[in-house]
Amino acid sequence: MTVGKTIASKAARTVQEISKNQHLPNNSRVFSLIQPTGKFHIGNYLGAIQSWKTLSETESPGTQYIFGIADLHAITTGVKPAGELRSNRHEAMAGILSCGLNPKKCILFHQSSVPEHAELHWYLTCLTSMGALNRMTQWKSKARQLGDDESDQLKFLEHTKAGLLCYPILQAADILIYRSTHVPVGDDQSQHLEMCRSVAINFNNSYKTNFFPIPQTLLTPSKKILSLRNPLKKMSKSDPDQSSCIYITDAPEVIAKKIRKATTDSVQGPVYFDPEARPGVSNLINILSGVTSQSIEQVVEDLAYVKDHKQFKDHVTDVLVTEFKQQRELFEELMKDGVYLEKVCHEGRDKAREIATKNIEEVRKLIGMD
Amino acid sequence: MTVGKTIASKAARTVQEISKNQHLPNNSRVFSLIQPTGKFHIGNYLGAIQSWKTLSETESPGTQYIFGIADLHAITTGVKPAGELRSNRHEAMAGILSCGLNPKKCILFHQSSVPEHAELHWYLTCLTSMGALNRMTQWKSKARQLGDDESDQLKFLEHTKAGLLCYPILQAADILIYRSTHVPVGDDQSQHLEMCRSVAINFNNSYKTNFFPIPQTLLTPSKKILSLRNPLKKMSKSDPDQSSCIYITDAPEVIAKKIRKATTDSVQGPVYFDPEARPGVSNLINILSGVTSQSIEQVVEDLAYVKDHKQFKDHVTDVLVTEFKQQRELFEELMKDGVYLEKVCHEGRDKAREIATKNIEEVRKLIGMD
Repeated sequence: MTVGKTIASKAARTVQEISKNQHLPNNSRVFSLIQPTGKFHIGNYLGAIQSWKTLSETESPGTQYIFGIADLHAITTGVKPAGELRSNRHEAMAGILSCGLNPKKCILFHQSSVPEHAELHWYLTCLTSMGALNRMTQWKSKARQLGDDESDQLKFLEHTKAGLLCYPILQAADILIYRSTHVPVGDDQSQHLEMCRSVAINFNNSYKTNFFPIPQTLLTPSKKILSLRNPLKKMSKSDPDQSSCIYITDAPEVIAKKIRKATTDSVQGPVYFDPEARPGVSNLINILSGVTSQSIEQVVEDLAYVKDHKQFKDHVTDVLVTEFKQQRELFEELMKDGVYLEKVCHEGRDKAREIATKNIEEVRKLIGMD
Repeated sequence: MTVGKTIASKAARTVQEISKNQHLPNNSRVFSLIQPTGKFHIGNYLGAIQSWKTLSETESPGTQYIFGIADLHAITTGVKPAGELRSNRHEAMAGILSCGLNPKKCILFHQSSVPEHAELHWYLTCLTSMGALNRMTQWKSKARQLGDDESDQLKFLEHTKAGLLCYPILQAADILIYRSTHVPVGDDQSQHLEMCRSVAINFNNSYKTNFFPIPQTLLTPSKKILSLRNPLKKMSKSDPDQSSCIYITDAPEVIAKKIRKATTDSVQGPVYFDPEARPGVSNLINILSGVTSQSIEQVVEDLAYVKDHKQFKDHVTDVLVTEFKQQRELFEELMKDGVYLEKVCHEGRDKAREIATKNIEEVRKLIGMD
């Protein structure tokens, strides 16, 4: 794991660096997926979709951008009613489009609509050792979230679904089926991306080929967006207190109300950034910084005029309402236009499958399945 | 596990019963796969292919017979050179055809050519608990065969590939993707079939459907065919002493030589069946019984004229050479006719996919992936 970390830190660049220096080589293939949690909140937006947009606007001739909804991953934490998953997938696609991802410039698709992901997953499952999977920290923490008893390792392994263990192999297949070269991921996914890299190396070595490029990590800005009501935990769609969570499609009055109710503190005078001492205020500053793509320092400078918490909160509300106005309107339009949404999904699927079927055929040949 | 056993013994009928009483309901779907080990030896033939033939000749209007080469399973025990797997798949298909399986009556195909197996596998992986997989006895014994240290459970789990653990889920997907109703399997696979049954029940319950029939076990004759040279272990293709193993495509002189070298005993007089005291002789009687579909008693009666081991061995040789003559000739012809073999594979694949694509679409709808 130490070795993995070292490779990662050496190779990983941030999305911001790419965006500033336009250093994405020509003919790259940039790939990323996001889980269909339904409507996206600010955390989802800043963690993934904003970076996708930034990357897809990078000048890099011949580069393909492949972004999708990870619906096959969405079922690893338990059975959902079909209707719920269906509408989550739908809203997720509308959400991506409403953020300005352009289906003419990017391939936008649902993971499950390209069965070659699952097919490559099997081939990679036969190359990946149980030991490597067991060392992935995320599946254990997810298994624990599902309610199993942390103190009894064996018991919690007993009921965990195999899909949760095999999640990182599917993730590797997702990336490799397009022979992707660059993958924007958050800090929390970098262990999985290291695994993808070693799976690719393992495949290439096993079948004496260099078919799979070893994908490079592009770190997305690691803004931890926290709950508005309890700024000690992450903002989450599943929080029972929905005023803790701002969706990018929230109406202006809803945003205003949520920000008004946001937990801050009783420190008087100008606002400043201090996540330890002032977690609530700092979380709002962090959100402003993410949404406006300004540094924390710039944001705090812009807030110099602020005299009290009310003024501060009005400022935050104004920025969010303005920044997300277009998204919200587009989202509402898209949600009414099922025919267009379906057309985008089908076109994305067809383009993705064109690459995937060609690559899986090569994989079959390399293994001897032809 | 006790519960599983009980269900199994209650439901399981043997292939012989079906064949005698023609009790296969109309419109059944009979499904089975065999691993591509290359040429088949007598053990493979008696364990699977003979039963497939028997079943496919059963009068049962509307019943479909779907038999295939389990190439996706063949890679669970380690990387093979592509050329080896390729020729094993080729020889396995020629072997099946040479035994008289009729591609007009059965669907004959390579598992890997129908990607819906792998796709359904993922969906089922998200329903199957690690505990259920860990209780499968076969993967541990296979993992041990791969050379890991039996005494150190953790160490042996460390290097085992996830494909070996997930093998029974893929097996369930193989069966369920065709909504199969009957599965001929040997005793050693009945635990996996029980798992397939509970996966089917689990899926139906989880998604409030009865989409998957709960497949019934048809036990194949459990003739353990032993090594000719050491009748205390199973006949195996990987035995370094190849005279221990008779292939159904061996030339008459090769069969004669292997039988001449077969280990028997020094008991004088007529031959009789006593696996404990006379393992070598009893193994040959067992082979005769399997190959001629006669009971042990009938075989021993036919051997009443035999005065010594030489006469006995000549008898065995004659029977094997005669019984497998047609197979051998057909196999040699088929191995020369790549075009025909490929045609059979493609036709089988197309017929299998016709069923599989329809069913996976239904599965996607039931889960909400549409």
